[in-house]
Amino acid sequence: MGPDFDNAFRADFEALLRWRRDVRRFRSDPVEPQDIETLLGLADLAPSVGNSQPWRFVLVESPDRRARIQANFERANGEALEGYSGERAALYSKLKLAGLRDAPVHIAVFCQPDPDQGRGLGRRTMPETLCYSAVGAIHTLWLAARARGLGFGWVSILDPTPLNAMLDVPADWAFIAYLCLGYAEEEHKDPELERAGWQPRTALSRRVFRR
Amino acid sequence: MGPDFDNAFRADFEALLRWRRDVRRFRSDPVEPQDIETLLGLADLAPSVGNSQPWRFVLVESPDRRARIQANFERANGEALEGYSGERAALYSKLKLAGLRDAPVHIAVFCQPDPDQGRGLGRRTMPETLCYSAVGAIHTLWLAARARGLGFGWVSILDPTPLNAMLDVPADWAFIAYLCLGYAEEEHKDPELERAGWQPRTALSRRVFRR
Repeated sequence: MGPDFDNAFRADFEALLRWRRDVRRFRSDPVEPQDIETLLGLADLAPSVGNSQPWRFVLVESPDRRARIQANFERANGEALEGYSGERAALYSKLKLAGLRDAPVHIAVFCQPDPDQGRGLGRRTMPETLCYSAVGAIHTLWLAARARGLGFGWVSILDPTPLNAMLDVPADWAFIAYLCLGYAEEEHKDPELERAGWQPRTALSRRVFRR
Repeated sequence: MGPDFDNAFRADFEALLRWRRDVRRFRSDPVEPQDIETLLGLADLAPSVGNSQPWRFVLVESPDRRARIQANFERANGEALEGYSGERAALYSKLKLAGLRDAPVHIAVFCQPDPDQGRGLGRRTMPETLCYSAVGAIHTLWLAARARGLGFGWVSILDPTPLNAMLDVPADWAFIAYLCLGYAEEEHKDPELERAGWQPRTALSRRVFRR
């Protein structure tokens, strides 16, 4: 029989879900390499379609590569700003949307689009489940990081086109996410976008249907 | 300041990651409606791009609709079997790949592809992050279910084409996953596909790169 989880664990797990946040403000304190190893090992326990384990973690350590990622973000973010006008643009321009400069750990996550592993099981009609498996690994890493007091930020404001060449990985790997990891400057229970007046969360009842 | 999680919590969380499994063998015991509400509420805490909360949970309760989903699965599974030959086909045909008949709770998860919520933030260059957000919600539901002793199965062997009409949801919603939920017949620490000799997991070192 598997473990029985008790009410105390469930309450702590709920606190973890409520306090994991997308962090963009990092302290520069380093993260122990052993902690990164541990986190990647936990992420690797994530579910994957047909046991394919299609996620590929690229630890981006080169200052030159990090600078090019930062430039890619700034360009994409500038272009995003142009899509807003008036007060909304003014608000957007004040948001801090990535912690690339300060986060001590950068991890790019890719998905191998046709891995041998899994022998194709479960993904014939929905091959996108490979990328979805990589997302499960990222989410696992996120929660495991917060459980160790580490902040985690997912940067999606990037032009993915040049990233495979920039990071010297196979051209057919699908870029999924660029992650920042480190100790957070502040802890919050509410999302930064909610505090900044960009977008509140809404009631769950709008998202549940019965058929 | 946010909560500090201790070593006992981290050990239990690791056990949760190791013991959450894709379950295909369910007891028919019902799940309390209140538990389903709780699980959906926890899933709704998942991270989403720009706070867009694009996931849509459809509780599939109609026996007729469930029968049509089961038929869709059987057809897709039969077609998948035709893609294998010899011993591999013999092994595939013996695998139990879904628990649709017995699971008391069925949830289809969709992603709304262009929700107002979030006002487009963070998804201009990578709109697929909306679907990725829905996957985060599914993974949260999965872990929260297991923390309550509930088994969870993700059915991906489905032809998604007819599902929006079958479940009477807008044609532009993207189908992400069909979930089975209920009490598991057995608990295991290793994946069923590994036990059945289909595919072992492999060493993490194959999936980590430094640049």
